[in-house]
Amino acid sequence: MSETVAVIGGSMTKFGQREAWIRELLADAGEACLDDAGVPSDAVEHLYVSNMASGEFEGQTGVMNALAHDLGLLPAYSQRVDQTSASGGAGIYAAWQSVASGASEMTLLVGGEKMTHRSTAESTDIIASITHPAEYKHGVTLPSFAGLTARLYLDRFDAPRESLARVAVKNHENGTRNRKAQFQKEITVEEALESPIIADPLRLYDFCPVTDGSAALLFCPLEVAEEYADDYAVVSGVGGATDTHVVHEREDPTTMGGVVDSSEEAYEMAGIGPDDVDVAELHDMFTILEFLQMEALGFAEKGHAWEHAMDGRTKLDGDRPINPSGGLKSKGHPLGASGVAQAYEIYEQLVGEAGDRQVPAETGLACNVGGFGNCVTTAIFEANR
Amino acid sequence: MSETVAVIGGSMTKFGQREAWIRELLADAGEACLDDAGVPSDAVEHLYVSNMASGEFEGQTGVMNALAHDLGLLPAYSQRVDQTSASGGAGIYAAWQSVASGASEMTLLVGGEKMTHRSTAESTDIIASITHPAEYKHGVTLPSFAGLTARLYLDRFDAPRESLARVAVKNHENGTRNRKAQFQKEITVEEALESPIIADPLRLYDFCPVTDGSAALLFCPLEVAEEYADDYAVVSGVGGATDTHVVHEREDPTTMGGVVDSSEEAYEMAGIGPDDVDVAELHDMFTILEFLQMEALGFAEKGHAWEHAMDGRTKLDGDRPINPSGGLKSKGHPLGASGVAQAYEIYEQLVGEAGDRQVPAETGLACNVGGFGNCVTTAIFEANR
Repeated sequence: MSETVAVIGGSMTKFGQREAWIRELLADAGEACLDDAGVPSDAVEHLYVSNMASGEFEGQTGVMNALAHDLGLLPAYSQRVDQTSASGGAGIYAAWQSVASGASEMTLLVGGEKMTHRSTAESTDIIASITHPAEYKHGVTLPSFAGLTARLYLDRFDAPRESLARVAVKNHENGTRNRKAQFQKEITVEEALESPIIADPLRLYDFCPVTDGSAALLFCPLEVAEEYADDYAVVSGVGGATDTHVVHEREDPTTMGGVVDSSEEAYEMAGIGPDDVDVAELHDMFTILEFLQMEALGFAEKGHAWEHAMDGRTKLDGDRPINPSGGLKSKGHPLGASGVAQAYEIYEQLVGEAGDRQVPAETGLACNVGGFGNCVTTAIFEANR
Repeated sequence: MSETVAVIGGSMTKFGQREAWIRELLADAGEACLDDAGVPSDAVEHLYVSNMASGEFEGQTGVMNALAHDLGLLPAYSQRVDQTSASGGAGIYAAWQSVASGASEMTLLVGGEKMTHRSTAESTDIIASITHPAEYKHGVTLPSFAGLTARLYLDRFDAPRESLARVAVKNHENGTRNRKAQFQKEITVEEALESPIIADPLRLYDFCPVTDGSAALLFCPLEVAEEYADDYAVVSGVGGATDTHVVHEREDPTTMGGVVDSSEEAYEMAGIGPDDVDVAELHDMFTILEFLQMEALGFAEKGHAWEHAMDGRTKLDGDRPINPSGGLKSKGHPLGASGVAQAYEIYEQLVGEAGDRQVPAETGLACNVGGFGNCVTTAIFEANR
């Protein structure tokens, strides 16, 4: 039997356009996380850094070694975890494994990315390197896939275009309650529907922004958690899966196979089903992905997630709030940070520290997606308070 | 108690200047490894890819998702492990954790790098991004550190310059017995001592080459190993550590702190000491590093490793052969592959399949170093035959 793993602290920096470089962003989140948990730096045995592309964005690699040094964790083991835009979720899996295997009794996970100093064209080039070169060369970038898939979804399931706008409106509304979010701005359905077309039928407000930022979580065995904290969360389930690298080889582009597979693993480990999940952070890099993930996770019937958005069931006061943090849409999407920040929001909700965004929750789920569903991790957390 | 982890298969591609790109190199080693173990691709649950910089070298990221696809492993979980030039060793630690934690019952690790299509200046730039920017900007690259440290070592311990040449001569000699090694060429002490100066007192033959290649290992719990193989190896100890990111902050540059710390962890877990190790693969990116690691691992007294080289104790027929594969010096150093290839050599030695390089061994050790000792993993394997 492996160790039961707890999360006893968390943090995130302000997301947005930041002057700091990657080493500072990572150090800020890491330090704040140790402070939050009241754990001294010399207690940390393993450090994982979720980061996709500091080499490409800044010409700086070895950021995990630098961070171990900067935080005074030496001689702690340090390693970088990359799973493209799902690097944060993969970091959660890595941190869980490090504690569950007994290799570490105190594991710090810090995810971050510094992106906004590069032009949109440069960032797009770096991000597009995730995909198959044949797709990229022919101009099928991630936004293009999102447009194609949104068109198919709306047509096949007779969903109104407005339902996608409602995802953006909700996530922007939630973001105004999160001072760390990139955007602090409500938008209307009309504004979303009239914003400039990016990849038809998707418009500007269907896309997450380019963002700098970092987030951190601290993991340890359950019995160690009890020494440091009264309120904490337990990682009750975690799973990961890969889908085809070439998107056109998928049988049904509206089904996110990696989400199905990774969540089945996580549900089984946690011994629960989708109905037991009170709150979730999903990877809404594009609004359409919130629907596809809700369906793949079993939160809605196939082809019906859009109805939840229209009915307001995913809002803060709905049956099951989705993306209370503001999601990638409003909070921002610093690649390697996003999966960690999702789990940080769930942690805050479970320990009752989510402030104006607080929802009643005992069980929360975070789903982090890389590429266009090429790789996915799903993690389930339970409150222990 | 965590699971005992076995290695039931391994492979490496020919190292050298290769026409294949990174995806092909990784797929070649991965496929050969599954074949070697007789394990079907659909049995693989986790895939780890050790790779430092496919994005920087080739503009291709997401190589772990691509490889899972190419090898038919879907929906297996896939993740990239980066620890700069120690990415392979970090991959061993990650693979071990995945099995030891119970997350995976069959984990494939593939390490690889494609480098030779870039100019030496470009490669040097990419590799130098490991170091602190202040060092790099002032021209203190990894070869410079090696030169400075070699000078200090030779002076302080009254070691003859010839002792470094003997490391190169031995590793080239071993490489002639390894058809996968980049170099198949014996050299003499005189040739090594008269080769062009690179970073005084180090000369051309004190440095490993730039290399393309990949290597793979297959990990599973002990009881699963018994289903597939009669002869296999057990990971009896593993440890990892980080040293200062800024090299000049180290108290004594001739002591590799990361090697000391990671090997102490590995020895403790294995319940053995240095004298119990029959054969080792060390990270001889520069000849001087073979001495520093031998001393940090406890194979030689501080300041005395050079005597082992002069006496021939580290040769194939010596007391404890070091780098029977030819080492990074002769086998080549495709960054992400090297740590995996080191452990593959130990595996081959322990299962008695090392051919002309076979030495008598029950216990073997692999030590993989990133940066100039910035991060290190040490793994100990025991024969089970």
